[in-house]
Amino acid sequence: MHIVITGGAGFLGSRLAHQLLKRGQLTGRDGRPQSIHRITLLDVVAAPGFDDARIDTVTGDIADAAVIERVIGEDTHTIFHLAAIVSSQAEADFELGMKINFDATRLILERARTLGTQPRVVFTSSVAVFGGELPARVPDHALLMPQSSYGAQKVMAELLINDYSRKGYIDGRALRMPTIAVRPDAPNKAASSFASGIIREPLNGQPSVCPVSPNTRMWLMSPRKAIDNLIHGHEINGVEFGAARFLSIDGLSITVSEMVAALEQVAGAGVIKLIEWKEDDAIKRIVNSWPGDFDAKRAKALGFTADSDFASIVQAHIEDEVKTSA
Amino acid sequence: MHIVITGGAGFLGSRLAHQLLKRGQLTGRDGRPQSIHRITLLDVVAAPGFDDARIDTVTGDIADAAVIERVIGEDTHTIFHLAAIVSSQAEADFELGMKINFDATRLILERARTLGTQPRVVFTSSVAVFGGELPARVPDHALLMPQSSYGAQKVMAELLINDYSRKGYIDGRALRMPTIAVRPDAPNKAASSFASGIIREPLNGQPSVCPVSPNTRMWLMSPRKAIDNLIHGHEINGVEFGAARFLSIDGLSITVSEMVAALEQVAGAGVIKLIEWKEDDAIKRIVNSWPGDFDAKRAKALGFTADSDFASIVQAHIEDEVKTSA
Repeated sequence: MHIVITGGAGFLGSRLAHQLLKRGQLTGRDGRPQSIHRITLLDVVAAPGFDDARIDTVTGDIADAAVIERVIGEDTHTIFHLAAIVSSQAEADFELGMKINFDATRLILERARTLGTQPRVVFTSSVAVFGGELPARVPDHALLMPQSSYGAQKVMAELLINDYSRKGYIDGRALRMPTIAVRPDAPNKAASSFASGIIREPLNGQPSVCPVSPNTRMWLMSPRKAIDNLIHGHEINGVEFGAARFLSIDGLSITVSEMVAALEQVAGAGVIKLIEWKEDDAIKRIVNSWPGDFDAKRAKALGFTADSDFASIVQAHIEDEVKTSA
Repeated sequence: MHIVITGGAGFLGSRLAHQLLKRGQLTGRDGRPQSIHRITLLDVVAAPGFDDARIDTVTGDIADAAVIERVIGEDTHTIFHLAAIVSSQAEADFELGMKINFDATRLILERARTLGTQPRVVFTSSVAVFGGELPARVPDHALLMPQSSYGAQKVMAELLINDYSRKGYIDGRALRMPTIAVRPDAPNKAASSFASGIIREPLNGQPSVCPVSPNTRMWLMSPRKAIDNLIHGHEINGVEFGAARFLSIDGLSITVSEMVAALEQVAGAGVIKLIEWKEDDAIKRIVNSWPGDFDAKRAKALGFTADSDFASIVQAHIEDEVKTSA
């Protein structure tokens, strides 16, 4: 089985690759486990830190049809399409957002359609597809009304994945991921970047700015859980998705002040003093347009799982990422 | 004021042009009436039947950027974007549907963005954006779950129009039109084509096949009302649309058997004998995925109006279109 991971050098893509190497197999077209013989990590930079003959690193632009043609072939069983321009950057650079978040997705789907091989495509969508007036706890059937270009591009990609699946060109699953925290990498241009920063930086003895109000409610998922759910999303029989190949994944609903309280509980009062509260209107506008709680009935019924509490997420982050000199 | 109508040679585009020539003005950027000095009718064939110096006929492919650049200029105040590949054809020819229903729409919006002139864009969307499990009477906030490529392409275009409007690149309005009947032109590849055919052909003494069950509930609008609502959709101040530039227009909810009863009431029992009932699974699958009734609260609040009854629509069709030898 050949697998392609776009955004393969990113933190989620790399973790997914490591987990797949460890598992060694995924469910194949016939519903039975198949060995993974090759994983292609496609990204703009080479994915570091792999020492496994099954890993194939390709650097290139995913919005370039020639790159996509080279990477996705007749033997490609599965594509985890994770590459994206994040929310604040897509808002600031409209053309780049359209090119990577929409056009590149379409190129991948078109490649699959042309090949006629109906690969499984697992796509990371986002809670940013929602917006406008919504109940505090968002149901599965809530109207999609993105209030950012990033959200609009994600919905459009979901619609393509749904239609390409309905037509039998791919076997797609668009999973609306909660904000992933705690991310180990450097702050990025995601409006949600602070949700990791206010935990990660203080744990490393660094200051961090929180640009939203303490009572902002977030919909979160740990990196470990995100990888589990991406793989689970792959393993489900496509038929179980019914009429819609897009899905809000279950997550943890928590306010920023509750996150900080969990950090204090795990790491002590000194650590949280490194958080500076300084609201940023541009970030608040985007983050506040995202729902902070979902009634993810479909995801639960399909076997997706959420983190139980934030203190455990902080603890797992320390275990996985915080380098101690002890 | 310069206006562009795509699909300008079509029945709706031509009627709209005639109505605009008659009105002579539309609301301008400053909220005040402005004279229409030029209307460009863009279509793959030349629009026939115009004898007015203000009409400018352009034949060309709307999916060709050079054509769009030539037609939409700095002086273009308004674009009525009506051109589309209809539902059954977009389902049969996926590439053509994507090219015309999505890519051409994007070309038009990109042209506007590049010019920086923020034109008004009135786009005809469709009830085909809906699908899946829905209440019998669909509310404004119902989830969009298209069950056809045509519907998916229309939602994607709506999302673009919404995002381009939010960003200030255009002043857009995506109006989800009911099925328009009675259309005067020849049957086409719209799955809803029969809704006109079973009225038009019998009135002309010709047989017509009804491919759906008599109890199929349709959401209809007469051509006259459609033109009124397209112009009304243009005249509204964009701010009144709030967070969503897409809108389900109010229509007439009626079953096919009620339509036939209205035809009999207007034209007599002999006429309806020309209808042959012969169900077609492919057409039924698409038509039955569309809702037959809406609670179009937003449209009503914004001043859009619906036809009151189908007998009046049949009567108006006879007045406007049926050539009598008397």
